[in-house]
Formats: sequence, C-alpha cells, structure tokens
Amino acid sequence: MFAINDITAGVLKGDFLLLAKTISSVENKVQGVDDFLQALLPNAVPIIGVTGPPGAGKSTLISALIGEWIKEGKKIAVLSVDPSSPFHKGAILGDRIRMKEWYLHPSVFIRSLASRGHLGGLTSSMIELTTLLQSVGFDKIILETVGVGQSEVEVASLADTTVVVLVPEAGDEVQMMKSGLMEIADLFVVNKSDRPDAETFANHIVQMIMENGQDVNTIKVIKTVASQGVGVQDLIAAINTHQEDLSKTGRNIKLVMSKVEQLIVAHKLRQIDSQKMEAALKDALKSHQFNIFRFTNQYLD
Amino acid sequence: MFAINDITAGVLKGDFLLLAKTISSVENKVQGVDDFLQALLPNAVPIIGVTGPPGAGKSTLISALIGEWIKEGKKIAVLSVDPSSPFHKGAILGDRIRMKEWYLHPSVFIRSLASRGHLGGLTSSMIELTTLLQSVGFDKIILETVGVGQSEVEVASLADTTVVVLVPEAGDEVQMMKSGLMEIADLFVVNKSDRPDAETFANHIVQMIMENGQDVNTIKVIKTVASQGVGVQDLIAAINTHQEDLSKTGRNIKLVMSKVEQLIVAHKLRQIDSQKMEAALKDALKSHQFNIFRFTNQYLD
Repeated sequence: MFAINDITAGVLKGDFLLLAKTISSVENKVQGVDDFLQALLPNAVPIIGVTGPPGAGKSTLISALIGEWIKEGKKIAVLSVDPSSPFHKGAILGDRIRMKEWYLHPSVFIRSLASRGHLGGLTSSMIELTTLLQSVGFDKIILETVGVGQSEVEVASLADTTVVVLVPEAGDEVQMMKSGLMEIADLFVVNKSDRPDAETFANHIVQMIMENGQDVNTIKVIKTVASQGVGVQDLIAAINTHQEDLSKTGRNIKLVMSKVEQLIVAHKLRQIDSQKMEAALKDALKSHQFNIFRFTNQYLD
Repeated sequence: MFAINDITAGVLKGDFLLLAKTISSVENKVQGVDDFLQALLPNAVPIIGVTGPPGAGKSTLISALIGEWIKEGKKIAVLSVDPSSPFHKGAILGDRIRMKEWYLHPSVFIRSLASRGHLGGLTSSMIELTTLLQSVGFDKIILETVGVGQSEVEVASLADTTVVVLVPEAGDEVQMMKSGLMEIADLFVVNKSDRPDAETFANHIVQMIMENGQDVNTIKVIKTVASQGVGVQDLIAAINTHQEDLSKTGRNIKLVMSKVEQLIVAHKLRQIDSQKMEAALKDALKSHQFNIFRFTNQYLD
C-alpha cells in the first residue's frame, strides 16, 4: 500500500495515479488493506448519492454540480456504480460521455465501480472507498448509481444525502415502479423541467411525499434543467440544508450504525469457507428432509 | 408453539387457524421458535417466486395457476410480500380482490407479509415461513412480490423458480428499469398478450436474454392471457421443466447456500445490542476523525 501522505499530495496537485492504484488494491483486498484502512483519518466530507432511472440526466446534473463546486475551489470525487448487467452498457457509456468534460480536470476524480452480486459485497467496498476519499483531501464525494435493482438502495444507505433524479415524462406505471425510489430520497430533482408536464409531475411527487407521511419541507422537490444549469444553485442550497439538518436530527448516527452493521455482515461472510460449505451442503441435502436451520447452526456463534 | 402434527392435520382438512397463529409466532420470534424450526422435517416442495411491476396481472396469473393445481388435487400456499410503503396500498388491495376467489378454498392458504426495512429481515423470516409451509403438507408454495426496490431481489434469492410477469405496453424507459428484473428471472411471462404489441414485446425480451449471454431455451418467454386462462398450461410446463433442471445444474445447491448465508447474517445482526452500539457510536463520533473500521473491530470475531 502507498503512504497516505503521498496519495494526498497527488490529489492536491491533480495527480490521481496513486489514488487509483490504491482503490484497486482496496477493491482486491490485497495484503495490508485492513491495516491501511484502520489507519485512515477521514474528514467529515459529505457523501451525496445521486440515483434515478436511465435517461433522467443524472450525469448532466452531476456535471453541473461539479461546475459549481469547482468555482468554489472544491475537490470532487465521483464514484459511479455500474450495474453488472450488460443491459446498462448503453446508459453507462452515455453517462461517461456526458461527464467527460471533467475527466481531465485536476480537481475532479471519477471512477466507475462494477457492482458485485455477492450479498453485502458492493456496500462493504463502497464504505472502504468513500472513507479513503474522505481521507485524502476531497471536499465532496458523489456516488452515482442507476436506479434499478438493489444497488440504489445500497448506495442510499451510504450517502449522507440521497438525491433522486426523475424526468417529467413517465407514465403511471413508471411512477409506481419509482415508488421504490420514494423510500430512499432525501431530495427529489425533476430534471428537464422545461418540458410541458414538469409542474404537474413535480406536484405529483409532492403529493406522494405527503401521502407517505413525510415532510415536504424536508424532502424538497427541485426543478432543474441541468443541461442549462437551471436550478443547480437551488439543488446545492437544498443539499447544504439537508446536511446541516443531519446532525440535528441524529440521522447521521443511524447512517453510521447501518454502515457498521454492513461491515460486520461483510466480515462474517468473508469468514465462511464457501467450498467447504458447499461440500457439507451436498452431503446434507442427500438426506430426505433437510432442515436448513439445523445445518446453519454449525456456522453460528 | 403448536405441535406440527396438529398444524398439518388442520392443513389437510382446510383449517388454517393453527398455521396462521404459528406464522405470527415465527414472525414475532416468540420464545421457543428456534427449537420449533429446528425440529421441522420439510419436504422438497418447490417455491415459485412471482414478481413484476404493479398492474402486470401477477395476482390474476397466480389465481389461474391455483385453479390448475387445484384440479390436480394440490394444496397451495401463497405468501404475498407487501412493500411497506403506503404507495403500494392500492395495488395490494387490488391484488387481494383479484385473488379473493381462493380466500375461502380449503386447499389454498394465502397470507400477506409486511416487508421490513431491517437488513436481511425479510428474507430471514421468509426462509423460516417457507420451511414451515414445506413441512405441513402443501404441494406448491408461491411467493408473490411487487417488483419495486429490493424486495423482489430478496424473494428471487429464496425461490426455486422466479417468474417475472410483464405486460406489452411499457415504454423504453420502463424496459430499462425492468432490466433489474432481467437478472432474477428464471422465466418470463408476457401477460395480457392479446394486446396488439405482445409479439414485438415478447421478441424484445428474447433479444435481451440473448444479449445478456443467457440461454433462451432455459429462460423461456411465455405468453399468457391470465384472465382467460390462456397460456397457463404452458407456464406450468415451463415451471416443471425448470424445476427438473435445477438439480441437474446444481443451482439448487447455490440457492441453499445463499439461504444459509442469509440466516447467518440475520443471526449475527440479532446479536448486536443496537442501543449499546448507538451509545458507543455517539461517543466515538465526538472525535474529529472517526475511523469506522477501528470502531467496527470490537464487533468482529
């Protein structure tokens, strides 16, 4: 592993080579990673999750956020979670193109991560990577994920502020499907809000928030046209307000607790010798009436 | 806890009172549940997951499946997972109405379960409940869930055969969103396939399966009009074929392994004293540079 001071010095001057190599080492859990992680001294850098369906304009919005933060002299890290399915390739490639204006900027670090199937696998390494990014001089950390399957739920469990990006064109069914997103949103963005139905759509979301028994003064609905920078300042203000509220409401404690639980789970699962378990299972399944609870007992402590 | 023989005797004559009470005891983890579960002698009853977006006709399809199986003299249990959000109330109520023809039938047991937010909470109790149902005389177990958020991924990890139900009307974006469903499907049903675009839609799914590098002879796409019973026999044949293939491909071992892992995780999380952890965290977070890995260390073994 590289010395954290050397990585930080690189980040300071816009040279992300050591950081990129370290991220690979953390992802691959090379020898020494545990000690390295336990020696990190992270700062309280906010983690902003950005999720929503393909085509909602997440990357354009992130580009716009980066543009504003750069003006304030901030250093920004973006982690993009690629769902592993090849179905998403189009969307992700499109995203990369939209964000490419920042790829060579010395204040912006962008990295795509493959999502893994293994229970707790993605979040465990995301906790490690975001803690690393918090420790090497970044001011803002953005986690981007496409709102399909469970990856956005996992990402929301890591972000201090989760922004759900939607567009005013979805039919009834889409809105129902998106209701999975309702439960993870700290803020909603109605992007491409120069479209005719934007106002109606935004009102509809406000109504859903109220029906869900939540507070529309807390879960704000912000209208943007990210490609023209419209509404981006409003979004930044809402993100800042949300983060100020976090510590007041004690939600930050719940968030850290959930991360600790996820680390415990990931550690427990890593302890299991899968090959040995598979062999034992094959044997046990030969019995006619296999009881999974009796079998599992041997792995409990 | 009731004696398993008494519950089984009730199921045999269509009296589900003891079963319903036992399910509540298992869900609430009353004293003695662990011993009760470990004494179960489950049969190899197939678990069929049925998922898809609201309005796809899942309940109508399940009703049609029940109708066919009843004719064969089977006993059927249906567990419906209610996503906890109030947004879904409409859909679920509608589902109930559509399935109500079976509510009083002595060969059919239907129970709705609230999904819980806690990590691993839903699946852990679903493993317990399906094992219970496998032990008291049912021939088929159906797990129904609305395809939003992570609940359908969890359910797919429990089902021997996961059937994804879609309708030929969804736009491009919906199809992208559904791609989260692509990864969990063992079989696709294009329901309401008397609609004009059904053929195109079914071909589109076949194409997506091929693009995903999967075998269209294994992941079949079945056209149904559930409300008229059209295609239901094809679906039953496909389910049967899939279940015969399960043991040949060894996928059943992977499935049981995943369940064992989920039970281990749930047990580990139950061991944590959340209140104590929260107090310790509040204290630790006072330090300026809180390291989550050092903090988590105390909970690892």
